[in-house]
Amino acid sequence: LTLFGGGPGVASGIAPMRFISVDALRPSDRFAPRHNSVSEADAAEMLKVCGYKTVDDLISATVPSAIRRGVMNIGRYDAGLTESEYLEKIRGMANKNKVFKSYLGMGYYNTHIPPVIQRNILENPGWYTQYTPYQAEIAQGRLEGLLAFQTVVCDLTGMEIANASLLDEATAAAEGMGMCSAMSRGKKPRFLISDKCHPQTITVCQTRASGLGIKVEVGDAATWKFGPDVSGALVQYPATDGTVSSYKALASQAHAAGAKLVVATDLLALTLLEPPGEWGADVVVGSAQRFGVPMGYGGPHAGFFACHTQNLRMMPGRLIGVSKDSHGRPALRMALQTREQHIRRDKATSNICTAQALLANIAAMYAVYHGPEGLKTIANRVHGLAATLAEGAKQCGHKVQKQPFFDTVCVDVKDAKKVAALAADHQINVRVLSPSEITIALDETTTLEDVDALLCVLNGGVSPPFTSASLAPKVQPTLGPHARTTPYLEQHVFNAHHSEHEMLRYLKKLENRDLSLVHSMIPLGSCTMKLNATSEMMPITWNELANLHPFVPANQAEGYKEMFEDLAQQLCAITAFDSVSLQPNAGASGEYAGLMAIRQYHRSRGDHARDVCLIPASAHGTNPASAAMAGMKIVTIRSDDQGNVDIAQLREKAIAHKDKLAALMITYPSTHGVYEEGVDEICKIIHDNGGQVYMDGANMNAQVGLTAPGVIGADVCHLNLHKTFCIPHGGGGPGMGPIGVKAHLAPFLPSHPVVNTGGLPVPDGKLDPFGTVSAAPFGSSLILPISYAYISMMGSKGLTEASKLAILNANYMACRLSSHYPILFKGKNGTCAHEFMIDVRPLKASAGIEESDIAKRLIDYGFHSPTMSWPVAGTLMIEPTESESKAELDRFCTAMIAIRGEIQEIIDGKADKENNLMKNAPHPAHVVLSDSWNYPYPRERAAYPADWVRNAKFWPSTSRVDNVHGDRHIIARIPTLEEARAEAYAAAA
Amino acid sequence: LTLFGGGPGVASGIAPMRFISVDALRPSDRFAPRHNSVSEADAAEMLKVCGYKTVDDLISATVPSAIRRGVMNIGRYDAGLTESEYLEKIRGMANKNKVFKSYLGMGYYNTHIPPVIQRNILENPGWYTQYTPYQAEIAQGRLEGLLAFQTVVCDLTGMEIANASLLDEATAAAEGMGMCSAMSRGKKPRFLISDKCHPQTITVCQTRASGLGIKVEVGDAATWKFGPDVSGALVQYPATDGTVSSYKALASQAHAAGAKLVVATDLLALTLLEPPGEWGADVVVGSAQRFGVPMGYGGPHAGFFACHTQNLRMMPGRLIGVSKDSHGRPALRMALQTREQHIRRDKATSNICTAQALLANIAAMYAVYHGPEGLKTIANRVHGLAATLAEGAKQCGHKVQKQPFFDTVCVDVKDAKKVAALAADHQINVRVLSPSEITIALDETTTLEDVDALLCVLNGGVSPPFTSASLAPKVQPTLGPHARTTPYLEQHVFNAHHSEHEMLRYLKKLENRDLSLVHSMIPLGSCTMKLNATSEMMPITWNELANLHPFVPANQAEGYKEMFEDLAQQLCAITAFDSVSLQPNAGASGEYAGLMAIRQYHRSRGDHARDVCLIPASAHGTNPASAAMAGMKIVTIRSDDQGNVDIAQLREKAIAHKDKLAALMITYPSTHGVYEEGVDEICKIIHDNGGQVYMDGANMNAQVGLTAPGVIGADVCHLNLHKTFCIPHGGGGPGMGPIGVKAHLAPFLPSHPVVNTGGLPVPDGKLDPFGTVSAAPFGSSLILPISYAYISMMGSKGLTEASKLAILNANYMACRLSSHYPILFKGKNGTCAHEFMIDVRPLKASAGIEESDIAKRLIDYGFHSPTMSWPVAGTLMIEPTESESKAELDRFCTAMIAIRGEIQEIIDGKADKENNLMKNAPHPAHVVLSDSWNYPYPRERAAYPADWVRNAKFWPSTSRVDNVHGDRHIIARIPTLEEARAEAYAAAA
Repeated sequence: LTLFGGGPGVASGIAPMRFISVDALRPSDRFAPRHNSVSEADAAEMLKVCGYKTVDDLISATVPSAIRRGVMNIGRYDAGLTESEYLEKIRGMANKNKVFKSYLGMGYYNTHIPPVIQRNILENPGWYTQYTPYQAEIAQGRLEGLLAFQTVVCDLTGMEIANASLLDEATAAAEGMGMCSAMSRGKKPRFLISDKCHPQTITVCQTRASGLGIKVEVGDAATWKFGPDVSGALVQYPATDGTVSSYKALASQAHAAGAKLVVATDLLALTLLEPPGEWGADVVVGSAQRFGVPMGYGGPHAGFFACHTQNLRMMPGRLIGVSKDSHGRPALRMALQTREQHIRRDKATSNICTAQALLANIAAMYAVYHGPEGLKTIANRVHGLAATLAEGAKQCGHKVQKQPFFDTVCVDVKDAKKVAALAADHQINVRVLSPSEITIALDETTTLEDVDALLCVLNGGVSPPFTSASLAPKVQPTLGPHARTTPYLEQHVFNAHHSEHEMLRYLKKLENRDLSLVHSMIPLGSCTMKLNATSEMMPITWNELANLHPFVPANQAEGYKEMFEDLAQQLCAITAFDSVSLQPNAGASGEYAGLMAIRQYHRSRGDHARDVCLIPASAHGTNPASAAMAGMKIVTIRSDDQGNVDIAQLREKAIAHKDKLAALMITYPSTHGVYEEGVDEICKIIHDNGGQVYMDGANMNAQVGLTAPGVIGADVCHLNLHKTFCIPHGGGGPGMGPIGVKAHLAPFLPSHPVVNTGGLPVPDGKLDPFGTVSAAPFGSSLILPISYAYISMMGSKGLTEASKLAILNANYMACRLSSHYPILFKGKNGTCAHEFMIDVRPLKASAGIEESDIAKRLIDYGFHSPTMSWPVAGTLMIEPTESESKAELDRFCTAMIAIRGEIQEIIDGKADKENNLMKNAPHPAHVVLSDSWNYPYPRERAAYPADWVRNAKFWPSTSRVDNVHGDRHIIARIPTLEEARAEAYAAAA
Repeated sequence: LTLFGGGPGVASGIAPMRFISVDALRPSDRFAPRHNSVSEADAAEMLKVCGYKTVDDLISATVPSAIRRGVMNIGRYDAGLTESEYLEKIRGMANKNKVFKSYLGMGYYNTHIPPVIQRNILENPGWYTQYTPYQAEIAQGRLEGLLAFQTVVCDLTGMEIANASLLDEATAAAEGMGMCSAMSRGKKPRFLISDKCHPQTITVCQTRASGLGIKVEVGDAATWKFGPDVSGALVQYPATDGTVSSYKALASQAHAAGAKLVVATDLLALTLLEPPGEWGADVVVGSAQRFGVPMGYGGPHAGFFACHTQNLRMMPGRLIGVSKDSHGRPALRMALQTREQHIRRDKATSNICTAQALLANIAAMYAVYHGPEGLKTIANRVHGLAATLAEGAKQCGHKVQKQPFFDTVCVDVKDAKKVAALAADHQINVRVLSPSEITIALDETTTLEDVDALLCVLNGGVSPPFTSASLAPKVQPTLGPHARTTPYLEQHVFNAHHSEHEMLRYLKKLENRDLSLVHSMIPLGSCTMKLNATSEMMPITWNELANLHPFVPANQAEGYKEMFEDLAQQLCAITAFDSVSLQPNAGASGEYAGLMAIRQYHRSRGDHARDVCLIPASAHGTNPASAAMAGMKIVTIRSDDQGNVDIAQLREKAIAHKDKLAALMITYPSTHGVYEEGVDEICKIIHDNGGQVYMDGANMNAQVGLTAPGVIGADVCHLNLHKTFCIPHGGGGPGMGPIGVKAHLAPFLPSHPVVNTGGLPVPDGKLDPFGTVSAAPFGSSLILPISYAYISMMGSKGLTEASKLAILNANYMACRLSSHYPILFKGKNGTCAHEFMIDVRPLKASAGIEESDIAKRLIDYGFHSPTMSWPVAGTLMIEPTESESKAELDRFCTAMIAIRGEIQEIIDGKADKENNLMKNAPHPAHVVLSDSWNYPYPRERAAYPADWVRNAKFWPSTSRVDNVHGDRHIIARIPTLEEARAEAYAAAA
């Protein structure tokens, strides 16, 4: 009765009536306030501390007006999507991809990621938000996983030592080539590559060779002659067409001529095949993708690199090694860090920085979960199915490759394209190897029914009168003389966690040793450890995005295509550039690609002499390394007292080299955390002297929406999507380093030998790509939706606000800390950019305390250290990012101030210079609760220096790790660790 | 050249040639060995310890041959699917569900689960594998979450105290009715229910009333007269048709007559509406579903129940309260556990056991993430959209419900069915309220575009000449006199975690305080804490399963239907029954439903006098409580010395009551962990005397594949899917308790007032359902795929092996422990079933050590205690389950044996009787590293009593929690906790 009726109604005159605004009816679950953690009220307080009235006042005082940009518009999601809106959009795009059965091989295979690993590593922020394990004491979990990865690679390849991942198989092969060249001290210019390597491997090596001045010859390995000018050779085992043949004689031949043999191989095949280490390989490379890592339309996956111990110091990439802690217990850490590129600079033959830690860990845990027997069972099954397929193909009347092969069957079908088209009609992809041949590469996921479907295709589209099951009992698969006889993975860890409960608990045990963003801020200068939002991460494990082979026909990847085009357009809008290449799969790879594009541009204009690259002294170490790899000569520009590029010297050198000037590499804001005022002038000087400006995008988080490389005057810039654009660091990779360019450079962006690609949007006119830098056409495609999500959900306004708040946060912290630690380098109005350095060198003198002591003591407070001693020795560089709340910033400042107080006690003589809270840090639980406590300060002070630590303590699992000891006694495989542990416990008991 | 060719091939004669078996080519990633953790080699060693040659020998000695079953065949997946095969199957089924926009309301609403909560709680084994927080010291995280839930309910309803969840809104209302009856000491038989309550709420109350002997009258609340025989009344606010009206006068009227008012309400509406607590409600109930918990085709969600403090001791369900630990620090734990049904037994008016802890935690965290302002924004938006829709409907020419309404608009469309059909054509569901009226209930996910689509339907399928955006500015939404004026959720926790980083870290902090299956085994007797495999869990967050309203037309839920039918058929095969009801959403609900079906069966035969239920003394406390609720009189049967049912007494009582005998309730194997030999005889006695046999399925894990309720002679049995069939415990719920029955009982299985349902497979003949036991037709449908996955992947063989290994594991542990602790009760050959009890009563006498001391000391060893003092006081009941590896069993045994050694020191006078390792346990980090350590044993012994603990220590977050103190000073809302903590820290500083 009260439900219907006219008139003013029961409510009139009682509660105030308000009209609705349409805006109030739009979705209220905006993403930006979830990402940008500082509330308006917090910002007001923080501005007061900084001495500014509004955020915009602070920004105006900080970012030079000459380079401020006008309105940024990122395109169709300019207003920003809500999380649910984005997930609906990307779901729609994903559904446009067609997940056929792909038997294309070429280094990419379907695989089952065990659900327990998918959920507890790949979908777990406790793993994916970890930083590179520079602070070993709070990284023992992933270090143990990476040690297992190295062990898997060593055992399966039969080599002595392996690193903890490179970017992909093709670049690993190129690194192998570079190492051969380096071993010959650059004196042997030729390098041979078998034409039975995967096509992308050949192209990436050719591109790399062109920069390094190596002469690559691709041909039939059977015809090779090793002259004295050959540094090495590369073969594929099994070959790209599936054949398994012996390279033993070839290895001997190479060695006799003083050359090295690089072998690209497949880990699953090696569970059954004689390992390259047993027949003379010097370097073994490949991809661990099929060990449980989804193909992801090309990546990310862990490439691997193994060699002999004697060549250890030339091995590129990160190496995990066993050392001991300050109490003599075994502990892991990254070994031989001095090998890294930031030390070698212009002498580098490699610019490897990011690894693929998360994927290497997945591959290692896949091996742990299956164990040697499980892996062998999988391999035997794949091999048996391949042999059955071959038999069936023969019975269908085709000429078929003879055994031995492992998983890839080559069939002469007369008209390969026709059969491939017929296969596509059956939602099956096979590889067209030649006009008459196809190859079919089987994998872990292949079933008898799948083989039947293949046989149907091979039988012209009608089922043959037999099935794989009826054929199988008559088939004799064999690897002949190549069968493996040596055991592998006999270590405990590979034989103990084969049920899901055991695996789950092992994973959780490792995870709980590692500090990540789920615990507290990781204020790493130049690394921009911001929020990796869940909604950004969710799509990457969707079938339609995860299980696409990178070389499927374009019409099966239309969802990806749409996303790439959108993302490229967004990145163009953000950088004020005209075209983007999504191929480089790490920041350093982007640097290299950018310089190669510049080089190609100069050459296209007949400027073959332009090979000088100016690099400021404060540059990232990858800058000179990348320049060296692009065949450029490095000229260093010094910094002035304020840490800025010395413009006078820059002008002088630019003019001096003006006929040879290729490029300047510059980071903006500077690596010192300052918006240099003269950057527009710097760009002009370079251009005036015929050079191009390469901008390092590491500090892009301080530019987005406020300025842009294209506005400042740069011609090319790489974007660390794993910094500014939210791809999680994964404990040391994956990363992505796409590059944006001005229109004149767009034709020179990288292409790919299998999939037609170049700049996006596609540039006008003729393309003249310099080559290929990654195995996959669009790099690590699977993680691109993360950045796409971030940009699309933030919208222009949210992105700009993020930059502003990153700057506010940094300035607030700098202000809070400045009366306790000197701040190095500021802008002209006394502000910093999105990061700043504190100078701890005075404390070395007064208290004997170094930056590493503060770093380790911060662990006791529950924090990861800022960047240590880079770009200036004796400093800590702090970058808070916009995702940290005022409460978190305050906790960190409180910790730093408290530590300064602890240091003061040393200065004041109240604490010992050697035996104190900093030198003994970090303090693990087993130390603070030890029955023998002999330190001159109370236990609680060591362990609970702040109230929030009492509330939720993150315990380091070791005391301070001894780097020197580990580097002197390299142990980089598992058994020794476990033995050592057993010994240590026995000793302690 | 070597690739093609005939003949014997290069390999011949070198490696041995083997033919392939077809089996070797079938998928190798079998699930059973991932679930069943004991390897063959381990089993051999374990059998040696047990003194048996084979597992089958042990089983034959353990399970009476009289009840062994023949071959079990679970149907279409009898051989067991691999994980990837299962995921493909369930994906196909899920895709058969159609996710329309549902505006059906009735207590179920679309909601956005924040991704950070979805991934880090709902998809995180660290949360979902937790057990009920009986061991408070290792459960402070979820206890804090549940305290937040109680606070949300109290604040929003305006009530003084709330519990930490009931099963759903309808059963919560029935509990409210039961409480009114209990408050009148059963002397007021009438209970009034408004006809504007949700239909399922009314039916569930009617069913419940029929068992309890309450007379329910459903009618128009405006016409009610409260006589002296009325115990209470139930109204819905807002009403099911959307109206918001005042019940203040009604409350006064009820109170004046000595009756109570129960109010069913909606938490989101209460952010804007005057709360029931402010206008006289005595009990407030509802569902927290729309606070971020997906509808899941009916559940699971957290029901809530709030009342006045004075009625606290009558409140059903679990209550979380603040207490202090042995060092005086505030700590949380379950309060007033003596209220629980296992104490009340046959005096019970409630049999509530399982809660919905996981879902309550999600709802609480949803409130934490949005905060009061965020919730109000959402509510205002929903309200504004509803007002806009109403205005649009009016302009389309319909008669529309007047304001005030919150989210549900009632429209007189003349032909409601026709409009609903038109809506369905537009993939929209509206509710048909009457022949002429529909209701449309909007929610958080509704957009302006959605409203436009609704207006199009209301305009006969063509877009009207206006849009919601054009209408909105002219609309004045109002709640009139019902607008809320009091604030809510002002506590810190609801105002501090609104960015994703803050939320993520808060969730992780809570998680890390709680021990779960990710850390170690939880050997809870009778609770079967087995592996909850990831592949089982993955589908439950898929859109097509998660976002279906329970009352959608059947043709939109065909995927669910197929799955239900399959699952029911599997459960029939496993139990040897003929039909299954999937409705009961907890074990106790299943018991109740089973007894009600028996009751209805007797009545259908004219046997109205049969109301005696025989229950062994050793039964679960829910058994007598359920019987009491079904209106039965309980007659207890004693146990003999061996813990078995005293068959002589049973026979005697069965005969004595033979005209009134309704049922026997029996658990098998017995709650003492023994396969009683006489169970077949027992069943016969009952049947001979006209009764039915109800089997409690708690111990089904020891039956599957070996015997079955139907084989033994039972007529009905409930299945705790959260025990035997892998639904995770979620920290105290959800659970599912479907019942299986013999054919003669099938017609009486529960139905539902909205969705036509009954037994599956559908029984022949006329149905005569006894009523409805859950709000949703198929209970907590969303979690049924978990059990379906388990059964389908294990296959008959895997399932049977699981039972065998569960028995092997228990016997192995019993053998290892038997020389250290007496084992209570064994079968005739000296073996136990899948669980066993150790007797610690002698240690009380000799060392003053009780079972709780051992339980708390186990925490120091990293383990959760076994079940304490149930079913026999002074014992620990240990159930390992088949998912635990020998290594884990050995660790647990080692811990128990070591503790026995520690106790021996007391007996031997080497340790103090009061101040010892057990009495002071557990030892949190802040205690063992305290600067003042005064215990008479070393710190390391306290904290690191075993080597595995040194390797990975789980730290309890408090020392022993004082239950008595908390029960004497009930604090069950947050602010006081935080104040108390602040005080404690201040005191400690």
